[in-house]
Amino acid sequence: MKVGIVGLGLIGGSLGLDLRSRGLEVLGVSRRRSVCEIARDRGAVDEASVDLALLQKADVIFICTPLSAIAPTVQQLIPLVSSNTILTDVGSVKQSIAATCSKLSPNFVGGHPMAGTAEQGIEAAQANLFAGAPYVLTPTETTPATALKVVEDLVGLLDARLYICSPARHDRAVAFISHLPLFASAGLIQTCLRESDSEVLQLAQKLASSGFRDTSRIGGGNPELGVAIARHNRLELARSLRQYRQVLDTLIEEIEGENWDAIEQSLQENQGARPDFLN
Amino acid sequence: MKVGIVGLGLIGGSLGLDLRSRGLEVLGVSRRRSVCEIARDRGAVDEASVDLALLQKADVIFICTPLSAIAPTVQQLIPLVSSNTILTDVGSVKQSIAATCSKLSPNFVGGHPMAGTAEQGIEAAQANLFAGAPYVLTPTETTPATALKVVEDLVGLLDARLYICSPARHDRAVAFISHLPLFASAGLIQTCLRESDSEVLQLAQKLASSGFRDTSRIGGGNPELGVAIARHNRLELARSLRQYRQVLDTLIEEIEGENWDAIEQSLQENQGARPDFLN
Repeated sequence: MKVGIVGLGLIGGSLGLDLRSRGLEVLGVSRRRSVCEIARDRGAVDEASVDLALLQKADVIFICTPLSAIAPTVQQLIPLVSSNTILTDVGSVKQSIAATCSKLSPNFVGGHPMAGTAEQGIEAAQANLFAGAPYVLTPTETTPATALKVVEDLVGLLDARLYICSPARHDRAVAFISHLPLFASAGLIQTCLRESDSEVLQLAQKLASSGFRDTSRIGGGNPELGVAIARHNRLELARSLRQYRQVLDTLIEEIEGENWDAIEQSLQENQGARPDFLN
Repeated sequence: MKVGIVGLGLIGGSLGLDLRSRGLEVLGVSRRRSVCEIARDRGAVDEASVDLALLQKADVIFICTPLSAIAPTVQQLIPLVSSNTILTDVGSVKQSIAATCSKLSPNFVGGHPMAGTAEQGIEAAQANLFAGAPYVLTPTETTPATALKVVEDLVGLLDARLYICSPARHDRAVAFISHLPLFASAGLIQTCLRESDSEVLQLAQKLASSGFRDTSRIGGGNPELGVAIARHNRLELARSLRQYRQVLDTLIEEIEGENWDAIEQSLQENQGARPDFLN
């Protein structure tokens, strides 16, 4: 089987390393020649090009570009590849992408490997990046079962934990455990920065320790990624933020009403429930 | 100098280990005989008793009980000790304690060593627990300079980073970097648990990774500690939660209004500002 990869960054490069090591032929496309060369040198691809036409003969193509380039890439691929070619992406939100790309290609299977490192780019690509990590596939009502099966088998080769659900459930679930936490975390930093008493702010900076470090980490990360998530999962993110605000409203009421029993009960519920979220 | 310690848990026991190693005589009081024995065996105290009367001759007494027992302990100590005896506590909120205890004792100096481990109790006590960690002293207008100086010197022996501020500024600063993050974190878990689609909740549990692990850690911790913090720092916690809610309101408006520039700007501000909070 010939596998194409568009976008030879951390995810695309790591996919190439794994799939080649399983005996598949991997064809890679990057916009930059230098990246193509590194990908070849590192053994992430058999062939690489800056031209999408390289992928004409691919049976399956993984689109590993940034979120906003996924649909345009599918559009560019359509005139180049056969109608049997299976297209799959690795974007972190799925509803908007599935809606657009399923219309463009009859064999589109949305996907989201939930693996990563702090580093980006082909230099950071590594073997077995996906082993043990969740990999979600999000077929729609029109996704052919045969196309889904092919992508499932490839995910199996990566030793990833496969989950299959609708694009809507995916986006809602990742809003809860990834996108909402990011913006809740961002809000914590913003709240500190808006304190008008500069002595309090300076003291807060000196006293902050592991609790603040952990809760502020994802809110102090890559701004472009945060904006991309907000743009692409806008509705589910806004929905989860509104639900979060309701929870906070209840909490503020309980604190101001000195309803300590209610607060203890919800903290106990949290303590009991949190292990279910740790894999 | 004779130093008394009431409450021989992690903090009291660790204080005893350090102060004895600096040549001071340490007298410890615990409600439990078994804890007194362990404290003696571990070298955290020279003498220990279940009776506060042991501290009659102490020059300085550290009150290392849970928050709610601090003021009652001061009240019990007053008839036993000389009016020159300096009392200091290690509670994590300071305004309410300073107000009550400064009235009870002319030589009360509020304090907050910001060190800890995941473990509790005398068994977890360790030497040099406070080295490099912040230790805040919160004198009021009526705190004698001589009493403050004595406690400052003892904090110096611990190699802690000393900060001095008013109880109000302390409580506001720790609300921002410790208490607000705790309840913001608790709210994230609660928001997930309130999702009515059980398939979404189950998927969220499977997909949660390091982002959720970090942001939910302190909100899934000890419920009693959370309630104690909310009770004792009620006003500042509620104030910071209201400010946080305003920040979230702005964020929701920006997301729903697709004001991506504003979101990118605040995420960039966060990314630039967060290192100031990491010591």
